[in-house]
Amino acid sequence: MTTLYDVAAIGNAIVDVISPASDDFLSDRGLIKGTMRLIDDVEAQALYARMAAAVEASGGSACNSIAGLSSFGGRGAFIGKIGVDELGAVFTHDIEALGVRFGGVPLTDGVTGRCLINVTPDGERTMTTCLGAAALLEPSDVDSAIIEAAAVVYLEGYLFDPEPARRAFAKAAGLARASGRLIALTLSDAFVVERHRGALLGFIESEVDILFANEAEITALYQTKDFDEAVAAARGKAKISAITRGKQGSTIISGDETHHVNAVPIEKVVDTTGAGDQYAAGFLHGLARGLSLDHCGRLGSLAAAEVIAHYGPRPQVSLRDLATQAGL
Amino acid sequence: MTTLYDVAAIGNAIVDVISPASDDFLSDRGLIKGTMRLIDDVEAQALYARMAAAVEASGGSACNSIAGLSSFGGRGAFIGKIGVDELGAVFTHDIEALGVRFGGVPLTDGVTGRCLINVTPDGERTMTTCLGAAALLEPSDVDSAIIEAAAVVYLEGYLFDPEPARRAFAKAAGLARASGRLIALTLSDAFVVERHRGALLGFIESEVDILFANEAEITALYQTKDFDEAVAAARGKAKISAITRGKQGSTIISGDETHHVNAVPIEKVVDTTGAGDQYAAGFLHGLARGLSLDHCGRLGSLAAAEVIAHYGPRPQVSLRDLATQAGL
Repeated sequence: MTTLYDVAAIGNAIVDVISPASDDFLSDRGLIKGTMRLIDDVEAQALYARMAAAVEASGGSACNSIAGLSSFGGRGAFIGKIGVDELGAVFTHDIEALGVRFGGVPLTDGVTGRCLINVTPDGERTMTTCLGAAALLEPSDVDSAIIEAAAVVYLEGYLFDPEPARRAFAKAAGLARASGRLIALTLSDAFVVERHRGALLGFIESEVDILFANEAEITALYQTKDFDEAVAAARGKAKISAITRGKQGSTIISGDETHHVNAVPIEKVVDTTGAGDQYAAGFLHGLARGLSLDHCGRLGSLAAAEVIAHYGPRPQVSLRDLATQAGL
Repeated sequence: MTTLYDVAAIGNAIVDVISPASDDFLSDRGLIKGTMRLIDDVEAQALYARMAAAVEASGGSACNSIAGLSSFGGRGAFIGKIGVDELGAVFTHDIEALGVRFGGVPLTDGVTGRCLINVTPDGERTMTTCLGAAALLEPSDVDSAIIEAAAVVYLEGYLFDPEPARRAFAKAAGLARASGRLIALTLSDAFVVERHRGALLGFIESEVDILFANEAEITALYQTKDFDEAVAAARGKAKISAITRGKQGSTIISGDETHHVNAVPIEKVVDTTGAGDQYAAGFLHGLARGLSLDHCGRLGSLAAAEVIAHYGPRPQVSLRDLATQAGL
């Protein structure tokens, strides 16, 4: 089968609504900094009414990664579910403008999902997601022609939450495996890991070639507070694990190999939304080009540094140009 | 009458859709850099389909100024017309989140206006506006209680284009004058000036206390290519004229006085959208506090420098804090 895409991602199709917020704003509403919580439409309306003036931008974790991959010059596809509404039109416009193949049938009787993101002065983002149509992604949305034509199938851990999306996820993994394609997974969020630890552990061990996680997620997965213990536990599970640690860079393990990659320093962290997504974008782009794991990690760090220096989850400049300038 | 607002603005209620673009993108579509052109919905759809991935943010020239005024700690009101749709909800949320009094009755059978903004690598913005409901602002939307309670009524030159909005504009000016309030006007765009020169000249001479214009607008108004000639022509027309010149700062004239205010240097101009709007915000905030014209101009320069350093037409940090830091 011809490889048409470097990466095909499946994830929640979401439009982000991004506001600055104080730490008190979070604590007054029981929001836990740096995490994602699912909310219904009533709660979303109430929270939005209290949030500061916002900016809207297409988001969705895996789709952000595909946007980053495109910015590097990679070929991406994305499968997710939107509603037939203004936000759905925005999401579709933005992904198609990137030259990404967009799969998944829009839902005529549902609204496009949105993520209310409160960004505190330290740049940390706290997310509350009203999934809408995204929660109704189902196996029939997974176009086998897309999956079979992608070198890597990239799956978002958030999809473990809605039951139909989880079946779509399983279908994609099965198709990828049957076609000899690589399977990548991001753990998405520490609470997602808590909710689905058993299923995730089994899936990683049996199916996953490339695992992405941050420190909170990997320690939650292996139920330890110690980073090194978590890394030791992860070794030998997925073929490759790339674990990000914010300012401390990332650790990449594969078999007996261990690589430490530094973060790219930036002047001021404005909004960490999309940091992990863009790290995965750079890493997978490098992998698709057959680069070393260390080189992949450096591309990931570069992309993450770009996105945290401004509001919004996707790069605002060409990552390909940035990589060239950085000699990567 | 009690003064409840430092500034009440009347303008087009618009949501901005902001994309990066090349110079070729503009010239291929006959778009003239740095200007605003009105388009209908069909043309807007076609242009949007060709634009790069975008970010959405509440805009509208005069409303951006009110957002800036709020960020300085000033008390603002805004009158404009939206539709009953998702973008209208976004616009309403954002303005109310700023603590601004929002007047004007939403239009049930019209869509909220939007402005497609293409930002070239030099940071210059080129705007195409589909006015939607904004074009149907009419005199009955102008709440006399708001106008009479504002120290300054600030009018957007763009309102000279749609006929009902122009009548609303005239009503507001009449109310302001009758209540002994100051009237401020921004010329908005050189092509607006070309279309309505006679009416604008008459209005400025008879009614306007504070005129805002950039170099292209003031030279268009007085039909000269020479900046100094235009400034000479403007002298004595409005009580105060504040004329911005991008990197070259601004020139403020009042009677025989002339003040030159430097621009605040920034590292990189990302997106000039909102530069003039924020200059007006700073200037009017200073005026409302009884500061000198030079001081007003410096607050304007400060606010303009903040907004051109990032995408989007409104400040992303507290202008009050910035002013304190700058000793203003």
